[in-house]
Amino acid sequence: MKVKVPKTLLTEHVALLERVIPTRSSNPLFTYLGLALTPDALVLFGTNGEVDLEVRLELPTEGEGRFLVPAQPFFQLVKSLPGDQVELDFGAELSLSSGSFSTRLSLAPDEGYPELFFPSLEGPAEPYPLQTLLPVEELLKALSHVRYAASNEEYRAIFRGVQLEFSEGGLRSVASDGYRLALYRLAKPQPFAKKVVVPARSVDEMVRVLKGMGEGEVALALGPGVLGLATSGSQGAAATGKGQLRMAVRLMEGEFPDYERVIPKEFPLKAAFDVEAFREALRRVSVLSDRQNHRVDLLFEEGRVLLSAEGDYGKGQEEVPVRLEGLPLAVAYNARYLLEALSPLSGQAVLLLSGPTSPSLVRPGEAAEGYQAVVVPLRV
Amino acid sequence: MKVKVPKTLLTEHVALLERVIPTRSSNPLFTYLGLALTPDALVLFGTNGEVDLEVRLELPTEGEGRFLVPAQPFFQLVKSLPGDQVELDFGAELSLSSGSFSTRLSLAPDEGYPELFFPSLEGPAEPYPLQTLLPVEELLKALSHVRYAASNEEYRAIFRGVQLEFSEGGLRSVASDGYRLALYRLAKPQPFAKKVVVPARSVDEMVRVLKGMGEGEVALALGPGVLGLATSGSQGAAATGKGQLRMAVRLMEGEFPDYERVIPKEFPLKAAFDVEAFREALRRVSVLSDRQNHRVDLLFEEGRVLLSAEGDYGKGQEEVPVRLEGLPLAVAYNARYLLEALSPLSGQAVLLLSGPTSPSLVRPGEAAEGYQAVVVPLRV
Repeated sequence: MKVKVPKTLLTEHVALLERVIPTRSSNPLFTYLGLALTPDALVLFGTNGEVDLEVRLELPTEGEGRFLVPAQPFFQLVKSLPGDQVELDFGAELSLSSGSFSTRLSLAPDEGYPELFFPSLEGPAEPYPLQTLLPVEELLKALSHVRYAASNEEYRAIFRGVQLEFSEGGLRSVASDGYRLALYRLAKPQPFAKKVVVPARSVDEMVRVLKGMGEGEVALALGPGVLGLATSGSQGAAATGKGQLRMAVRLMEGEFPDYERVIPKEFPLKAAFDVEAFREALRRVSVLSDRQNHRVDLLFEEGRVLLSAEGDYGKGQEEVPVRLEGLPLAVAYNARYLLEALSPLSGQAVLLLSGPTSPSLVRPGEAAEGYQAVVVPLRV
Repeated sequence: MKVKVPKTLLTEHVALLERVIPTRSSNPLFTYLGLALTPDALVLFGTNGEVDLEVRLELPTEGEGRFLVPAQPFFQLVKSLPGDQVELDFGAELSLSSGSFSTRLSLAPDEGYPELFFPSLEGPAEPYPLQTLLPVEELLKALSHVRYAASNEEYRAIFRGVQLEFSEGGLRSVASDGYRLALYRLAKPQPFAKKVVVPARSVDEMVRVLKGMGEGEVALALGPGVLGLATSGSQGAAATGKGQLRMAVRLMEGEFPDYERVIPKEFPLKAAFDVEAFREALRRVSVLSDRQNHRVDLLFEEGRVLLSAEGDYGKGQEEVPVRLEGLPLAVAYNARYLLEALSPLSGQAVLLLSGPTSPSLVRPGEAAEGYQAVVVPLRV
């Protein structure tokens, strides 16, 4: 049972599995990398119990089989092999050779290794009865724009995930820690209605895998307690350098409490500004802010906002040009929350104030759909 | 009391002090950055009790004084100032302004702040009666080539430092952890004879500061329990972008036990090889080595060395071309020690074997002086 793989193809795809497969685990089998030979592909797979990942490299093979190899030495070796090609020969052991280097790695029996279920690209199929197709780029934005707002606290565990809401109206992602909220709306109608919550750490893995996919579409599928991803990949991995990726992540139980009521609807003041300049100024002024509440005061006036902060070290201030619609207003925020709310934005941003102590909204300059964030002012 | 500083000049030199000044300390004054105005310079200084550092920027100034400012907010602010120039105005507080940003930082009285003594560039002067001039590059090599061999163990604390030996014969640096030894010899005669031991962590700071100095010479001076450094810097810091740096590091008490006897003198086998190729192969093969002793076996034969290792994961082997002088020999090393001994080298390297169980020497391909390392084989 043999296969020959270009070294760069192997290293690039192995790097994705290296993120998922743990160095140590209460289940020692999770520290192994799965390798399967099918008639037309080398399949690499792994899991940490929360996230399962499979990479399929279409290549000419000899023989069929399914093997487990200790992941850590395999990862280390693959990175530094001397040849352009890697030959894998499976028997009682795995013989790996590349250039002048050769090794025999012990293989473990795959008894007890969990069966991993991934969605099919052909359409909904058991155990994934619900399925939708999305542009990779849009799903990536929906996840990465809101991720920062998820909670790190044990308290109200559901907030440690990102909620994905599928409906006729489109796809929405939401994250909150109870103090602020981030949303991303994609207006593309979805073929089913469902709310699921993905653990924030698994969202990080999804983002990492999606980033490696480039453009194209991704199938997103739901099964009982599990969310699956599948990319189309390419025919002939050796020629294109792209394998087919499939992923499954365990979902959290429950869903977010109703958050619509905290999103303000009316805004006596609207301020538009260049987000880079505003963010830089906010970051500088916040250095002087109180180290407990990171308070920065914003005084909105005709054509400018004056940022100021005062703490144990002294005080600082800076002004930034803004375009105001509405009446001048003084308001204060926790600088860290405001900086994080602005973090996914570039170019023009808009801050919509519902009042000096009621929630404010952060949005990109143009879009009505897409990203928005709710930040609550500090009491003055 | 005022000074105007180009932003890049300030940020580059402040970065050196940021490494030294601690975020927290049992002596809270150490968390402050010192700023002094002299008639022709802005002087920045700081200490962590082990390492003192002073940066002198020759600039037009108004007034004279010595101030302490909280270092952390100062460091954070300086990095992100919006203007090209920074104006510092010292009064009851420090007013700092740059572009549209301005701040007032509280100043602390400098009572109780330790007086820092640095060598003079003019020549030996109290409290530094001994002084020598060295090329920056050579001192940098002497320190950085041997640093890795210093011990991290509490046991035999003297080995947690690097010994510098000044004599008529030249300058020598030595580090050891009792299991291996690294040496660097510089044949330039020194104007005094003395052995001192610098804590390895302070060596790291010296290396960092020396790296920023580029070419030229550095004065190295000894006082009671202290080693000092001074660079010539440049006239007119604003034009040249270079300040004058001075540094003082506390020395350790005592000196190394006699190590000459462990350096082998006769070698039945000499192997020369390309160090990159050898190192890569050694690194790959060592992935398979026993995780306790990292043993890699080396079989030297005519024209090649066969590296092999075997551990829980399996076994691996690779051969590398070598030029042998002497009889074929089998020997085994801890791969980590051998890799570290080779780490300062590039191009051609030589391994000199005194026998299969007695100490070996690692050297660069050509030089008789310069770097050498002693590595002891594992018992076969």
